[in-house]
Amino acid sequence: MAYAEIEYEVQDGIATVTLNRPDKMNAYTFTMRNEMLDVFDRIDADDDVRAVVVTGAGRAFCAGADLSGGGDTFDKEKSKDMFAGEDDVLEDGTPRDGGGTVALRIARCLKPVIGAFNGAAVGVGVTMTLPMDVRLASEKAKFGFVFARRGIVTEAASSWFLPRLVGIAQAMEWAATGRVFDAREALDGRLVSRVYAPDELLPAAYALAREIAGNTSAVSVATIRRLMWSGLSAPSPWDAHAADSRLMAELGGGADAIEGVTSFLEKRPAAFPMRVSKDLPENIPDWPTR
Amino acid sequence: MAYAEIEYEVQDGIATVTLNRPDKMNAYTFTMRNEMLDVFDRIDADDDVRAVVVTGAGRAFCAGADLSGGGDTFDKEKSKDMFAGEDDVLEDGTPRDGGGTVALRIARCLKPVIGAFNGAAVGVGVTMTLPMDVRLASEKAKFGFVFARRGIVTEAASSWFLPRLVGIAQAMEWAATGRVFDAREALDGRLVSRVYAPDELLPAAYALAREIAGNTSAVSVATIRRLMWSGLSAPSPWDAHAADSRLMAELGGGADAIEGVTSFLEKRPAAFPMRVSKDLPENIPDWPTR
Amino acid sequence: MAYAEIEYEVQDGIATVTLNRPDKMNAYTFTMRNEMLDVFDRIDADDDVRAVVVTGAGRAFCAGADLSGGGDTFDKEKSKDMFAGEDDVLEDGTPRDGGGTVALRIARCLKPVIGAFNGAAVGVGVTMTLPMDVRLASEKAKFGFVFARRGIVTEAASSWFLPRLVGIAQAMEWAATGRVFDAREALDGRLVSRVYAPDELLPAAYALAREIAGNTSAVSVATIRRLMWSGLSAPSPWDAHAADSRLMAELGGGADAIEGVTSFLEKRPAAFPMRVSKDLPENIPDWPTR
Repeated sequence: MAYAEIEYEVQDGIATVTLNRPDKMNAYTFTMRNEMLDVFDRIDADDDVRAVVVTGAGRAFCAGADLSGGGDTFDKEKSKDMFAGEDDVLEDGTPRDGGGTVALRIARCLKPVIGAFNGAAVGVGVTMTLPMDVRLASEKAKFGFVFARRGIVTEAASSWFLPRLVGIAQAMEWAATGRVFDAREALDGRLVSRVYAPDELLPAAYALAREIAGNTSAVSVATIRRLMWSGLSAPSPWDAHAADSRLMAELGGGADAIEGVTSFLEKRPAAFPMRVSKDLPENIPDWPTR
Repeated sequence: MAYAEIEYEVQDGIATVTLNRPDKMNAYTFTMRNEMLDVFDRIDADDDVRAVVVTGAGRAFCAGADLSGGGDTFDKEKSKDMFAGEDDVLEDGTPRDGGGTVALRIARCLKPVIGAFNGAAVGVGVTMTLPMDVRLASEKAKFGFVFARRGIVTEAASSWFLPRLVGIAQAMEWAATGRVFDAREALDGRLVSRVYAPDELLPAAYALAREIAGNTSAVSVATIRRLMWSGLSAPSPWDAHAADSRLMAELGGGADAIEGVTSFLEKRPAAFPMRVSKDLPENIPDWPTR
Repeated sequence: MAYAEIEYEVQDGIATVTLNRPDKMNAYTFTMRNEMLDVFDRIDADDDVRAVVVTGAGRAFCAGADLSGGGDTFDKEKSKDMFAGEDDVLEDGTPRDGGGTVALRIARCLKPVIGAFNGAAVGVGVTMTLPMDVRLASEKAKFGFVFARRGIVTEAASSWFLPRLVGIAQAMEWAATGRVFDAREALDGRLVSRVYAPDELLPAAYALAREIAGNTSAVSVATIRRLMWSGLSAPSPWDAHAADSRLMAELGGGADAIEGVTSFLEKRPAAFPMRVSKDLPENIPDWPTR
């Protein structure tokens, strides 16, 4: 699949997904949504990808929904751009929120995902990134949960992710005002983990990706990613304990565990033999696909 | 309804609720509880109210339970002040905790609520404020979850709200010591969002309220408030996604969405036509009323 | 019971548990697990213990799993050290993760638990401490969620505790990289509450323990601890409200509530008569024991 609105490349074990409509501030469309869903399937299927960096082409990260449809942009009858498509609806026939389909796909990804905010990330441009593992920002980044200023609601399952990431007080302040705020406020509010000079942003994102790719078992990382995100959703630590026990029983005797301990004792880099495409534990947690 | 222990006024779209027993440090009573329940019903019903500021008269915010009943203050047989009243009990007949009825009422409010802590907020004086959206403090504010020093337990559903607001480690440190702490510790622990000089507190609270009132759709804000708080309680992001989808389907074609996008494209202030009293979406999330 | 791999002493109402294999960096074994389970039973049963400090002998806190079994360390067939024992399995026969049994036991403790990190806390050495109430660190402490570097998964129910303590972004960054990090990074990421010079660590831990022991009702603190931790797990604030109401109804008329209010009004230290061993409220929340 060739992409029209994103770019995809893999180098040295790290995938880069670039939102790529720079003349439109990388505004989100139905096409971009479909390409994002497709690229995360590719990422999960490709054992050469150990970590993912998502960024934007040009000066924006993603300006949010493409508003070229004017006042009808969010109307489910007159514009299909913001929904998931006619064949992808809730059980009661409600059209699924399109941004949510991207967010939930990223939440289930088997590789760690790093958001690198080079510029403005507004509306769905920021909400779809909340299920990424780490968000890093350029000093030039701006953010806005502007939904209340457009007469709609926070979407992309952000009512679940945002208060868990930044606390309900910070989430409500940003969502109720619809304020656009800078990287410093995003850092203070813990929406992003670190802020960099513009030309240091991608190097920092790749350094973090390499730290993962160069030191860890891909199967461990995939399993931990699912375990940790589903743990955030688990009713109690006893559920997490049951999941842990099953996964330790499966992986504890596996080739990666043997190599992980042996290499550590021998004070040498590990060469993990297991592969995500064929060696995932049977009991790896999952969320519904839809 | 005229109030004996609170004051209520609405100006420029912003309601102010003032806890008003200054000679008693605004200590909490059964009367104050009833008046708080009533005033939040008025706030929800009044389309002229876009945001709420809650503060205290005199030098305290709220010193906690009125202890003039002495050792019997918290005894369900000998004092009714701390409970919800004889006709308002759990299914098994247990008297409902009165502070909890206030907290849960605030949690369901359709307007954003800003706590402005002018002075001491202790016991139920702070726990009932945890479901407010944003807490701002004067440098003179003090806080205390003093329940363990009184031989009782944290109430007002604070065992749910507090660890989600400040983390379980900070919540347990404050609750297990019963320590009274200053605004700086409250800020570092993320109980409050910002600290101000005493005479800058109310202006800051009103500035935030105006930022909401002046820029956003009232129906969007009401719906987002319910969506975000219920999202904090939702089992998984898939539940939030279903809620989002229904609300986007309902509101995306509404008059406020049309005005929100059109005014943005025309670079003019929005004039949102929808009203909370009659235009709330059918699928707006709710919590049980009791 | 005499302990081989931990030390236990009680002084002035404060228990100290010291992980005690200093020549092995206090590495975790099956024996240490059993002794930790036993000592927390003793702590709960002893009314003279009002708070607990857990620390490590020598220069480490706990270096994680004892890897002297080499590549087979985590293999459920070839090594039993990391599991809970043959008679302690999940319903489906899966061996229970041993670190999880310690973590879950600490989560249910009736006394507040303070972790005092004198040195390295790696793998299960840090995950088993996540259900402690407060973590304090020496400047010399180091931390690592190194599981992905060993080819296994995060355990001890850390997928539940860690993202709730530090946020999912910080949790995933530490877990996906397997990085070992210093006390400063732990503080910034809110894994620990405060950092001290090495010789100020234990005094600070004891000062906090004394602040609890010297000012509060033991029954209140035990009940609040269960209420707050189960509140972190409760589906909604309405569940917390029901629990609060029952506990206030039980304790509000109790001897500690009478003494707590009376002593406050009389401006004298409280002398709480109730005891954890016999006066716990009937409705105190609990989690499953396994």
